[in-house]
Amino acid sequence: MRFFSDNAAPVHPKIMQAIADANSVDTAYDGDALSQRLDAAFSELFEHDVAVIWISTGTAANCLALTSLVQPHQGVVCHREAHIEVDECGAPGFYTSGAKLMLVDGEGAKITPETVGDLISTIRPDVHQVQAAAVSITNATEYGLVYRPEEVAALGDICDERKLGLHMDGARFGNAVATLGCTPADVTSRAGVDVLSFGFVKNGGMNAEALVYFDPAMADEARYRRKRAGHLLSKGRFLAAQLLAFIDQDLWLDNARAANAAAQIIAEAAPERLLHPVEANEIFIRLSASEAATLRSLGFDFYDWGEGSARLVTSWHHREEDVQPLANAIAAL
Amino acid sequence: MRFFSDNAAPVHPKIMQAIADANSVDTAYDGDALSQRLDAAFSELFEHDVAVIWISTGTAANCLALTSLVQPHQGVVCHREAHIEVDECGAPGFYTSGAKLMLVDGEGAKITPETVGDLISTIRPDVHQVQAAAVSITNATEYGLVYRPEEVAALGDICDERKLGLHMDGARFGNAVATLGCTPADVTSRAGVDVLSFGFVKNGGMNAEALVYFDPAMADEARYRRKRAGHLLSKGRFLAAQLLAFIDQDLWLDNARAANAAAQIIAEAAPERLLHPVEANEIFIRLSASEAATLRSLGFDFYDWGEGSARLVTSWHHREEDVQPLANAIAAL
Amino acid sequence: MRFFSDNAAPVHPKIMQAIADANSVDTAYDGDALSQRLDAAFSELFEHDVAVIWISTGTAANCLALTSLVQPHQGVVCHREAHIEVDECGAPGFYTSGAKLMLVDGEGAKITPETVGDLISTIRPDVHQVQAAAVSITNATEYGLVYRPEEVAALGDICDERKLGLHMDGARFGNAVATLGCTPADVTSRAGVDVLSFGFVKNGGMNAEALVYFDPAMADEARYRRKRAGHLLSKGRFLAAQLLAFIDQDLWLDNARAANAAAQIIAEAAPERLLHPVEANEIFIRLSASEAATLRSLGFDFYDWGEGSARLVTSWHHREEDVQPLANAIAAL
Amino acid sequence: MRFFSDNAAPVHPKIMQAIADANSVDTAYDGDALSQRLDAAFSELFEHDVAVIWISTGTAANCLALTSLVQPHQGVVCHREAHIEVDECGAPGFYTSGAKLMLVDGEGAKITPETVGDLISTIRPDVHQVQAAAVSITNATEYGLVYRPEEVAALGDICDERKLGLHMDGARFGNAVATLGCTPADVTSRAGVDVLSFGFVKNGGMNAEALVYFDPAMADEARYRRKRAGHLLSKGRFLAAQLLAFIDQDLWLDNARAANAAAQIIAEAAPERLLHPVEANEIFIRLSASEAATLRSLGFDFYDWGEGSARLVTSWHHREEDVQPLANAIAAL
Repeated sequence: MRFFSDNAAPVHPKIMQAIADANSVDTAYDGDALSQRLDAAFSELFEHDVAVIWISTGTAANCLALTSLVQPHQGVVCHREAHIEVDECGAPGFYTSGAKLMLVDGEGAKITPETVGDLISTIRPDVHQVQAAAVSITNATEYGLVYRPEEVAALGDICDERKLGLHMDGARFGNAVATLGCTPADVTSRAGVDVLSFGFVKNGGMNAEALVYFDPAMADEARYRRKRAGHLLSKGRFLAAQLLAFIDQDLWLDNARAANAAAQIIAEAAPERLLHPVEANEIFIRLSASEAATLRSLGFDFYDWGEGSARLVTSWHHREEDVQPLANAIAAL
Repeated sequence: MRFFSDNAAPVHPKIMQAIADANSVDTAYDGDALSQRLDAAFSELFEHDVAVIWISTGTAANCLALTSLVQPHQGVVCHREAHIEVDECGAPGFYTSGAKLMLVDGEGAKITPETVGDLISTIRPDVHQVQAAAVSITNATEYGLVYRPEEVAALGDICDERKLGLHMDGARFGNAVATLGCTPADVTSRAGVDVLSFGFVKNGGMNAEALVYFDPAMADEARYRRKRAGHLLSKGRFLAAQLLAFIDQDLWLDNARAANAAAQIIAEAAPERLLHPVEANEIFIRLSASEAATLRSLGFDFYDWGEGSARLVTSWHHREEDVQPLANAIAAL
Repeated sequence: MRFFSDNAAPVHPKIMQAIADANSVDTAYDGDALSQRLDAAFSELFEHDVAVIWISTGTAANCLALTSLVQPHQGVVCHREAHIEVDECGAPGFYTSGAKLMLVDGEGAKITPETVGDLISTIRPDVHQVQAAAVSITNATEYGLVYRPEEVAALGDICDERKLGLHMDGARFGNAVATLGCTPADVTSRAGVDVLSFGFVKNGGMNAEALVYFDPAMADEARYRRKRAGHLLSKGRFLAAQLLAFIDQDLWLDNARAANAAAQIIAEAAPERLLHPVEANEIFIRLSASEAATLRSLGFDFYDWGEGSARLVTSWHHREEDVQPLANAIAAL
Repeated sequence: MRFFSDNAAPVHPKIMQAIADANSVDTAYDGDALSQRLDAAFSELFEHDVAVIWISTGTAANCLALTSLVQPHQGVVCHREAHIEVDECGAPGFYTSGAKLMLVDGEGAKITPETVGDLISTIRPDVHQVQAAAVSITNATEYGLVYRPEEVAALGDICDERKLGLHMDGARFGNAVATLGCTPADVTSRAGVDVLSFGFVKNGGMNAEALVYFDPAMADEARYRRKRAGHLLSKGRFLAAQLLAFIDQDLWLDNARAANAAAQIIAEAAPERLLHPVEANEIFIRLSASEAATLRSLGFDFYDWGEGSARLVTSWHHREEDVQPLANAIAAL
């Protein structure tokens, strides 16, 4: 059983069905009937007038979002272990034509108004230094922690105060909301988020993420940038179909809950091994090389996280009976 | 019946099946078993050692290709009506960090060694002017004409002579090869093409194009650029599955032949209206506004091509019985 | 005697003196006393509140100006023979991160509201095509013609109407104003120009051009971009000194008048050879290869302008007695 | 007396004279007789066949150098306090179209083969992470320390081994060589440096730095990039004149020695206050706010370096009698 990444999980059957159902002739690009329904559907979900752009990857979603918030000569404050810094091959530099990522530290890959403020206070306000224009946070974080609405709101406040845009990388946004039990709006628009990369691929989708602009006007330029980045698929109806299927009857939440529940089963099996609280669908544990080898010999696959640690990721398709054997195996180490 | 664009056509059932079959757990990105088979499969098709990168759009394929051939301070010679110049929202400028498209004219959107040579002869070889480093041609062209192997080879020769890379935008490569009756290699690797954007989406695919590098080493850097452009999908297996299904038993050729045959039916109905020879699946005809209205009132959809002209595009799913009514209606105007 | 380019002319003695006088210790970059005087001095000259940025080259001035007016995915309308298109090695693409130059034709390298309007009418207002966001004109033009205030104002009107920024490349702005006999404001701020590259180097300067922003707020971001482009010289006082010396007692106008007068002497010697009216300091004449050889054998240097034509450029240092021999020689051909 | 920055110092009289002497008509750009002498003159100085490009600022020199060594999707290893990271407003990101600066720590802003190796070992060799392609060091460093030839050579070795280019930011190269007593070649070409930004402006120049390519072929592309960045001044002879005057009779070394000697006088006055060894012309000292106020009240100007510290910079024009009063004042605190 694979716990390597939720990226590797299968596509949910309802999503496959939605894709199959979308296979008829329709206008190309995003002029089709399904794409045209997105703004309304997501506006309802977020209880806010939003504009939504489908896009194939989280990297592209994040980077398009950043181009809406910073000019090439400006900077984006993010965590030192943020996906945009560590795992996107410099894509933010490409999309923003060279804007700078400005790194802060923080437990569990979380940043706070204090760390943001401290970083900015080190920047001389002159033309020799890049000035920050945005903050990007990841919810759930790269270590599987969740920002609560009030934590996001506190960041939203400092962004307002210092005229910084606020982006949320929600590659695992569903997992965060499932844990929080709040509404999607509570942790985004109501908390000052300007743009959300709302991830679906890790949550059972095939190739569709939603870039959600809480100021619809901002999306107008982003649509040009999406085209310019080669991300305006000609058969966009297949992406729109996925997004609509996900928010229909809360499939996105159900899938996220399933993944989170699976993670808890593992977490409970080895509380003393946990490197971070398990608040979403990622479990980081202490694991020696020989213990890792033992687990692998039993058929479990996962990611080594530096020396002596491992990352296990659950996904929507992990049922209790899939996960329990791993939990047992870890407990038995 | 829609003749608006092959972009709007449905996905071929075999491709839908291949996508469905790919829906199992596998390694993310392009580490999966299907993606790993691409180089070998396409090397066989092209009778040449090639490296293949899947990518979701033709725009991204074209632009990635160009970044392999030019530096930001250099230029790409292409036709004034080339897709990269006219219809990609400046994507080449984005991908290449500002390289210049250098435009030549030519009947039917075709360029020749003469037009390339003439253009280059107007460039002063000093640092004040952008120097050309590549040529990009489209086969079949934006007006549905086809470059024959010897025409491409003549361009390949001038490229060799002047140390220019040669890119082929093959958004309708299948249609071209179907018409030519040659092998894929005859009109690419044997003719001096360095990189081919091999299009499948207009030919019945969902979201997978193949970027074919005839020098596999060149693909190594392109893989970084694909990631950096947000085009490394995490579930790449669904793209690889499409490409493999297309070249299995020549589905790509069968589809292209069907589209071409449908185009011929229309072309034969109105030879005196044709603005360009019909060599692939696009038909450009003289059509007055009132004639266009008549056709539309009969349920036919198509693209106005400036005043007094129209573009009709056939696709793999247009059977004779779908097309004949349009042919009749045009003949009856 | 050289009539090759005003770029090659010596620096005016008053400018050399101003440079020598600036050689004392002062704050680096543009914090020095001289740089700090620029805004006020130019605001007086332009009878308008302006912000002025010194910069070493016209290419950098033009490109910085464009970055203030267009986003990377947008376009700039300019003449097909504009310096930014032809002679800056793609610098606009570099500075704007890939914005597109959109070319129009027009006698004497001039553009009109009609040609701008015609070009824009060919652009589909959708994301597949680059949308224009600015117009750039050159005054005096690359062929030595001068835009009159009402011509600029007409362009300013269409720019207002279509929400386009208006940039003026004034590499030979002094020559234009000297010919027009208007105030600098008449042909810029009062006519709708947003940013002016005010050239001094061709007019007797060493390495200082003034980028004049008629909306001072716009200059704030440009200052970051100047630094980012490596154009914030640490001893900026030497550039500021030149600019101040130029506008003190109208040295810039005197120099331009001298150059223009010299040009008229040549023009009058060969009215039938003129390819363009001579309105500034450039003379384009019909000249066969053997005639060119004759002039060169007499010690006159100039630029061949394609086959059968030549460009002669006068400069501030050409006195009547320097130019008359050339005029005589041409008349005697 | 100002010890704020060597950037603020006057231009040396011999340089002013060379500039004055260059004020005659000559070909524009770098076609003039002085510019044409640079390669030979610097090849003699470096005992190596080099190509030299004049350029107006250190920022532009550094960034042009980096574009010769890295592609947009690659990275440059440098010190966390390197000028390119801290003080150039993101210029490297602009020039390289988004390449990443990869930061290492190290006493006195020095980096070592170990810190480079350690950093690279943390990079996964896959497309998700930016791969390093170059190392940039500053000699003398931002803290006034000097890399010895064997230290540079050790870095050169690891660069060779890992196929990384090696750039030296020599904004204060003269000060480093003056301290080392070695030849310029010992600490550059013989030690594996590929490109050197050889600074003259901080050492008594006006606006000319030399970008020295130890592989002349590499300079060919850089010349296009210089033009494209708006750095090809039309009256380049004034820059070439400065560079030639500097290396004539070792003016650059004399000036650097004078600055270094002045720094030693201050250093010796307060050995217990030194935060770093004084090996060039910068002195970093512990200095409380009230002590700083005292010095300023005595007429000495300098830069606060965070809380409780100050940076003092000497320059070529500081004679013993200019510096001794400051040394005395510090000793008397």
